[in-house]
Amino acid sequence: MWSTPGLLTDHYELTMVRAARADGTADRRCVFEVFARRLPPGRRYGVVAGMARLVELLRDFRFAPEVVSHLRERGVVDDDTAAWLKAYRFRGDIDGYAEGELFFPGSPILTVSGTFAECVLLETLVLSVLNHDCAVAAAAARMVTAARGRGLIEMGSRRTHEEAAVAAARAAYLAGFTYTSNLAAGARYGIPTAGTAAHAYTLLHDDEPTAFAGQVATLGADTTLLVDTYDISQGIRHAIAAAGPSLRAIRIDSGDLSVLAHQSRELLDSLGATETKIIVSGDLDENAIAALAAEPVDLYGAGTSVVTGSGAPTAGLVYKLVEVEGRPVVKRSENKATIGGRKTAVRRHKPTGTATEEIVFSRGVPDHSPHDRLLQHSYVAGGEAVPRPALAEARAHLRQCLISIPWEGLKLSAGDPAVPVTVVPSP
Amino acid sequence: MWSTPGLLTDHYELTMVRAARADGTADRRCVFEVFARRLPPGRRYGVVAGMARLVELLRDFRFAPEVVSHLRERGVVDDDTAAWLKAYRFRGDIDGYAEGELFFPGSPILTVSGTFAECVLLETLVLSVLNHDCAVAAAAARMVTAARGRGLIEMGSRRTHEEAAVAAARAAYLAGFTYTSNLAAGARYGIPTAGTAAHAYTLLHDDEPTAFAGQVATLGADTTLLVDTYDISQGIRHAIAAAGPSLRAIRIDSGDLSVLAHQSRELLDSLGATETKIIVSGDLDENAIAALAAEPVDLYGAGTSVVTGSGAPTAGLVYKLVEVEGRPVVKRSENKATIGGRKTAVRRHKPTGTATEEIVFSRGVPDHSPHDRLLQHSYVAGGEAVPRPALAEARAHLRQCLISIPWEGLKLSAGDPAVPVTVVPSP
Repeated sequence: MWSTPGLLTDHYELTMVRAARADGTADRRCVFEVFARRLPPGRRYGVVAGMARLVELLRDFRFAPEVVSHLRERGVVDDDTAAWLKAYRFRGDIDGYAEGELFFPGSPILTVSGTFAECVLLETLVLSVLNHDCAVAAAAARMVTAARGRGLIEMGSRRTHEEAAVAAARAAYLAGFTYTSNLAAGARYGIPTAGTAAHAYTLLHDDEPTAFAGQVATLGADTTLLVDTYDISQGIRHAIAAAGPSLRAIRIDSGDLSVLAHQSRELLDSLGATETKIIVSGDLDENAIAALAAEPVDLYGAGTSVVTGSGAPTAGLVYKLVEVEGRPVVKRSENKATIGGRKTAVRRHKPTGTATEEIVFSRGVPDHSPHDRLLQHSYVAGGEAVPRPALAEARAHLRQCLISIPWEGLKLSAGDPAVPVTVVPSP
Repeated sequence: MWSTPGLLTDHYELTMVRAARADGTADRRCVFEVFARRLPPGRRYGVVAGMARLVELLRDFRFAPEVVSHLRERGVVDDDTAAWLKAYRFRGDIDGYAEGELFFPGSPILTVSGTFAECVLLETLVLSVLNHDCAVAAAAARMVTAARGRGLIEMGSRRTHEEAAVAAARAAYLAGFTYTSNLAAGARYGIPTAGTAAHAYTLLHDDEPTAFAGQVATLGADTTLLVDTYDISQGIRHAIAAAGPSLRAIRIDSGDLSVLAHQSRELLDSLGATETKIIVSGDLDENAIAALAAEPVDLYGAGTSVVTGSGAPTAGLVYKLVEVEGRPVVKRSENKATIGGRKTAVRRHKPTGTATEEIVFSRGVPDHSPHDRLLQHSYVAGGEAVPRPALAEARAHLRQCLISIPWEGLKLSAGDPAVPVTVVPSP
């Protein structure tokens, strides 16, 4: 009962609903917008992820009678708001950028419209889902770029909250990772899972040859043997002795991976295992992956840094009221560039396909050329979910988007946003 | 079905079980240990949190027939392991440090004993829960120290995964926070919740006086008015005009909080609102909180930095096999100081109560004086959960532990662990 999505909400949302219902403003037509004021330090783009998770959670965003009673007893709501909550379901509209789309400071990635009360209640859930998933996807996309076409396994479940781990696996896959270690992500989202053995498996056995023989007896030579429990060179010899030269892969999880990958490749080749792949893991982030570009590595395993956003664990997205009954609103203390009102976003491209600019209009849909792309799509209309592309398509979309940005945008080093955003006020 | 705790597991755990069952090693008696090799950079202590969440999740850590069929179809398990999984429940023992206890590099905060197969399966869930909750609790404890007795509201739900937010609220409360904004944390764990209004509430209304009048009409003067939507001085005047000088609190969420807190106090006093509290929020971390110590602030709101561990979003805990059939085991590539075998931990204190050292014995329970404290307690015995102190007691325990460490240990600046850990090998 206490795991209902409706409770994944901050106390003040309900206090605001209560006061607004009492003073007659709760039903004013409002527009809320989700955007980032800035990207994390040094980042050149953000990646939209989590939209499908959000829409799925929204479907169950209700307040059961026991939950409402609890909130009433705790004094969070009064009788009037309690009755309203019992009947609550979101009946408004949600429009937003596609999953896998890039975003930049000021991009209106989500627009929520409806009454004040029905929309304000979604703030916490919307931001929790998007801030987390976008943060992971952006870090993962940089790792995919750094891997230059080599595969990546997301194996960070142990380094983040158990449910965040599942969402992180999804975001990393969306960003182009090849596999996840997380079985729930495999089951829920159909993401390919991978994983063979930890050091514990080797230590369990009397010695390494026995451990490898056991693994190969069950899983065949089409498996990955972890060779760094004791001495790596010895481990590789034991691995090929156990599986033969058709062993699929070895994994190295410690030490100087540049040197070890090189030495391991030589040793494997000398043992005739020329097709055996080398998988490396152990505190890899995008910079460590990039530094291994010249080494004979076939697959990277990334854990901590991908699930924690590689230094930026939250995407900095905010949920702001921008329009009330058709009137644009804005906090006085905001940056001067902030403009109220519902926005429309278009990304402009050269005829070659390179993105040049994102234009955010504060009113209406502008004229646009065939090289422009309208960035917003309907996710929820009148409270009903609108079918959207599946995860695989979002993954392909991001790949296309990353090809479309100016090449400087893919550099790992710190720099300006890859595509400038111009906000055009209404006339 | 796909949200069962059993699936919050890495693929390789099942692959290892499968190979170990085939080669006859799955039932070897094993001991796994959870510890941190190091604390995050500059930190002087870790805080144990998440144990109660872990034990609760373990209760449901099973594999339903549909889940097993899914894993079988995907080729993760074979028929033998599928049958074993269907009957799985953990029947071993779990011992660990109390929630609210401090830990240092090498502290054996959790010890899991049983067969290899039943214990290895728990690695991912154990580490997910503890790495997340301990990271948040450690950051939160530093903020509580920095607040010097003033209250703190955890309001970071919007900056982290929606379920991580609930666990983060619990960890922050354990560490001494006063309130959380998260309603699910209030419902699940009985944590006091707080929250009144966001800028959206003010913007919804035609002007600030109308917004404040609406809030006060519903919630009375015993509320908090957010005064920085437009001009703060004007906002404070509007607040007192609406609520009178008995207004409970104002909140400031932007700007130079040192200057604004000072000016706001003067203005409130000049308006006769001498008892009205000042709450500040907006990107506060432990250093920003410490910098406000001399200002007239009554309550701090912390969001992003607490839920993301203030620069250390994961606690660096690992789950290592240390003993097989009574024989200590250790990876060759480990630090020389790493010692295999089941450990017993004792914290030594001066007669004044100040902690001087943590001794970790690799065998048996050592002689200990009345000033020593045995750090490990039974959480699960023969698969059954053992009753443990409630959250409020864990919170009180941490307060006591922080009093017990040498005073340098409470400094926010970088430094060595507050209490040295000595690992004593078996004779």
